[in-house]
Amino acid sequence: MFEAVEGELAKIDKKAFEKREARLRTLLLETQYKILEASRFPVIILINGVDGAGKGETVNLLTEWMDPRHIHAHAVAKPTDEELERPPMYRFWRKLPPKGKIGVFFGSWYTRPIIEHAYDAWNKQEFADSLAEIRRFETMLVREGALIVKYWFHLSKKAQKKRLEELASDKATSWRVTKDDWKNFARTDEFRRTSERALSETWTDDAPWTLVDGRDEHARTLFVGETLLSAMRDRLAFEEKAAAKPKGVAKGSAARLAGLDLSAKVDKDTYEKRLAKAQRRLALLTRHKKFKELSPVLVFEGADAAGKGGAIRRVTRALDARIYQVIPVAAPTDEEKAQPYLWRFWRNAPRDGKVVIFDRSWYGRVLVERVEGFCAVADWRRAYDEINDFEQQLVAAGCPIAKFWLQISPEEQLRRFKEREDIAWKKFKITDEDWRNREKWSAYQIAASQMIEKTDHKAARWTVVAAEDKYHARLTVLETICDTIERAL
Amino acid sequence: MFEAVEGELAKIDKKAFEKREARLRTLLLETQYKILEASRFPVIILINGVDGAGKGETVNLLTEWMDPRHIHAHAVAKPTDEELERPPMYRFWRKLPPKGKIGVFFGSWYTRPIIEHAYDAWNKQEFADSLAEIRRFETMLVREGALIVKYWFHLSKKAQKKRLEELASDKATSWRVTKDDWKNFARTDEFRRTSERALSETWTDDAPWTLVDGRDEHARTLFVGETLLSAMRDRLAFEEKAAAKPKGVAKGSAARLAGLDLSAKVDKDTYEKRLAKAQRRLALLTRHKKFKELSPVLVFEGADAAGKGGAIRRVTRALDARIYQVIPVAAPTDEEKAQPYLWRFWRNAPRDGKVVIFDRSWYGRVLVERVEGFCAVADWRRAYDEINDFEQQLVAAGCPIAKFWLQISPEEQLRRFKEREDIAWKKFKITDEDWRNREKWSAYQIAASQMIEKTDHKAARWTVVAAEDKYHARLTVLETICDTIERAL
Repeated sequence: MFEAVEGELAKIDKKAFEKREARLRTLLLETQYKILEASRFPVIILINGVDGAGKGETVNLLTEWMDPRHIHAHAVAKPTDEELERPPMYRFWRKLPPKGKIGVFFGSWYTRPIIEHAYDAWNKQEFADSLAEIRRFETMLVREGALIVKYWFHLSKKAQKKRLEELASDKATSWRVTKDDWKNFARTDEFRRTSERALSETWTDDAPWTLVDGRDEHARTLFVGETLLSAMRDRLAFEEKAAAKPKGVAKGSAARLAGLDLSAKVDKDTYEKRLAKAQRRLALLTRHKKFKELSPVLVFEGADAAGKGGAIRRVTRALDARIYQVIPVAAPTDEEKAQPYLWRFWRNAPRDGKVVIFDRSWYGRVLVERVEGFCAVADWRRAYDEINDFEQQLVAAGCPIAKFWLQISPEEQLRRFKEREDIAWKKFKITDEDWRNREKWSAYQIAASQMIEKTDHKAARWTVVAAEDKYHARLTVLETICDTIERAL
Repeated sequence: MFEAVEGELAKIDKKAFEKREARLRTLLLETQYKILEASRFPVIILINGVDGAGKGETVNLLTEWMDPRHIHAHAVAKPTDEELERPPMYRFWRKLPPKGKIGVFFGSWYTRPIIEHAYDAWNKQEFADSLAEIRRFETMLVREGALIVKYWFHLSKKAQKKRLEELASDKATSWRVTKDDWKNFARTDEFRRTSERALSETWTDDAPWTLVDGRDEHARTLFVGETLLSAMRDRLAFEEKAAAKPKGVAKGSAARLAGLDLSAKVDKDTYEKRLAKAQRRLALLTRHKKFKELSPVLVFEGADAAGKGGAIRRVTRALDARIYQVIPVAAPTDEEKAQPYLWRFWRNAPRDGKVVIFDRSWYGRVLVERVEGFCAVADWRRAYDEINDFEQQLVAAGCPIAKFWLQISPEEQLRRFKEREDIAWKKFKITDEDWRNREKWSAYQIAASQMIEKTDHKAARWTVVAAEDKYHARLTVLETICDTIERAL
């Protein structure tokens, strides 16, 4: 693959360069402002490739050509301890540019897989898995609206050696050639094979690679600038032409929930005994010496008044206030709206030894957003896989997940709504919106049923809870959480 | 002071406790929902005091009584590396609850000063300084609308010893008594003196202390719950009655800027030579081995079209794209609006070795917010001291600050506005708002002049730049930045 940029080299002289550069930077700046003004999509630029091929210089030029207030470069350095305690992709999620802005990643999510495989720390399968994960991640970003421009800076072994030696021998630049650079250079052949594999596996229509011939500074610089310009302009033009994507509640059946037996009941005495027992069990589990390495994630979904809040309170009572956080998920803030929809959940990924409880969650995409038409059909359809992927990353990073769907009958919901209206301090819990949602009962049932079907994967099983009886529901929740944590310990 | 809670103890029996508790929790929950619904102020609860006096139990009860979705407890543990690289208060700023929510700090900004002084690591003056800083911080929070409720849990030496021995001898609770607890206990007398001093120095009208007698669990619990309830209800009632604070542009003179000579000019040749020299100097300074410990903060203020953007670009061109970030300050996001006004700047406090450039800044409070009446007179008046305080904290933590006011004449502004309207890619830079602001030229001049007068302190001097000539302005900016960093190295 790299032969394409190892052939004859068309150098560009200084005069020709300056003329083209002047025009280029005006156009880049103009395009940057258009993207900022539209604020419809972020631009994500990845700068990868061999050492000494001009990556650093190019990053500096990009930020020099454009308005530095709206472009931000990130060097992929050693992760901080706050990052190490979360899934590996957390550090990239937190640095994603919001809509309208440009983010340049110097080194990226490709850096680690390529290094690990080139040094034989990851085997073929691990490497392939990580590339597949990247492919899904990038596709998600593009579907969420991002423009991704991926550059691979190349030099042949011979050219790289010459370049590193040049840099090392000049006093002004010798500091730029590190021991690691030479260590990597000694494995050039492994790196070439590994990189080639990485690129071909992730060369998708959504996020294709652009190979950069690193030899001539002028030619390289113009090439990157001009390809970036055309990518940004194409994306803007696409935005202007793009037809609205169809919204709507696709049909389906509520089979997974329809047959559910809601008659399970527990009497008060039994409830109190079993509750105390389960809470004690949970309290002890969180004091287990290995618990410090875990970060359980608990997800509560269900119709309004299904008893999510009450169940959550029975859980938190067993926990020390300092180790848990409840995230009530309502309408996104404007900072959240400027990011891919999973961003607001990534930012709440728990640190080691902490429990995060989501009162409603990322499943909003396939429930309320689907039913109310807040997103296009294509968006909630792809969300199932994206969610499974997200949950798998959490589980792999030591976050056991327990997901609960609390099911009640429409008659029980009506009874609880009325009760809320009657009790002074419960009035806060009932709004006009609750009554409106109720009218769409069956659409929500279909959505919930399909959600359970498509996201009940091995790493994170759904527990459908018969919640007509609150006692029964709370016990099921607590005991399932204990089981989940116990298995993970 | 602590004698007040060492006297005769009125124990409360279980039956009386349960009756009062049931009523209390309903009222607390109701009040919590009212605060959430109003979303006008955050509630900040500090839990401090001696070990074994029931702090942990109380925090757990508070979160149990109220809705755990809207109350969040923070344990003050070891700072993370991301926190260590920023001013000490950063870790508290990032955890402040937004309006409508409740944050419980288990241990707080008092913990470190008290420990350091009790163990003689900080002398009297350092201790006094840290208390003064806390006093200013809390006053600021209260002025920004927060309700702060500060609890100090007390036990006499004798009672504490008894309590620790009880806990240690019971298998179920022995893990709660740590080596540190006994180590601290050995210094009880020092802790008592130090705490007494800390409390009396920070016992303000804005944020008074509440002493808690830690001996009887029932009495202690009800006392905390009931005092918290009444503090929250009072604050709600105050909110309902509060008259709108007067807004307006207080008068003053623009003396600091009026006499400024704007005639300084540099020709193109000289400009290019000096610019290249200054940029080279800046580039080298950022590669100085000690630079890794610094985090320069650069602040740009000035009228529209005064040349802030152009000056910033000349600075960033000298910097590696990976070490700086430009923060363009425009209208706050909704997450920022739910916090004290300095919060949006604290969240951008730089890490070690990074440069943060603010294109407009916290001075917006005393410029645009003052002139446009976005805040009350009392708010921008107190902002001068708060800003000086903020900057002193940055400087003390290794962030040298350079602040620039770019001054142009109204005639020059008009010329630049017209030029912007004529050049295609500059059109993005001129809006109706710019024309509207121009009409308030003299009000802005007065505000800027007073700002410079009141915030030109030793730790962070203003540089008033004659910016009629762009070349002269850019050179002044760059050379001043170099001087500032050089002094700090």
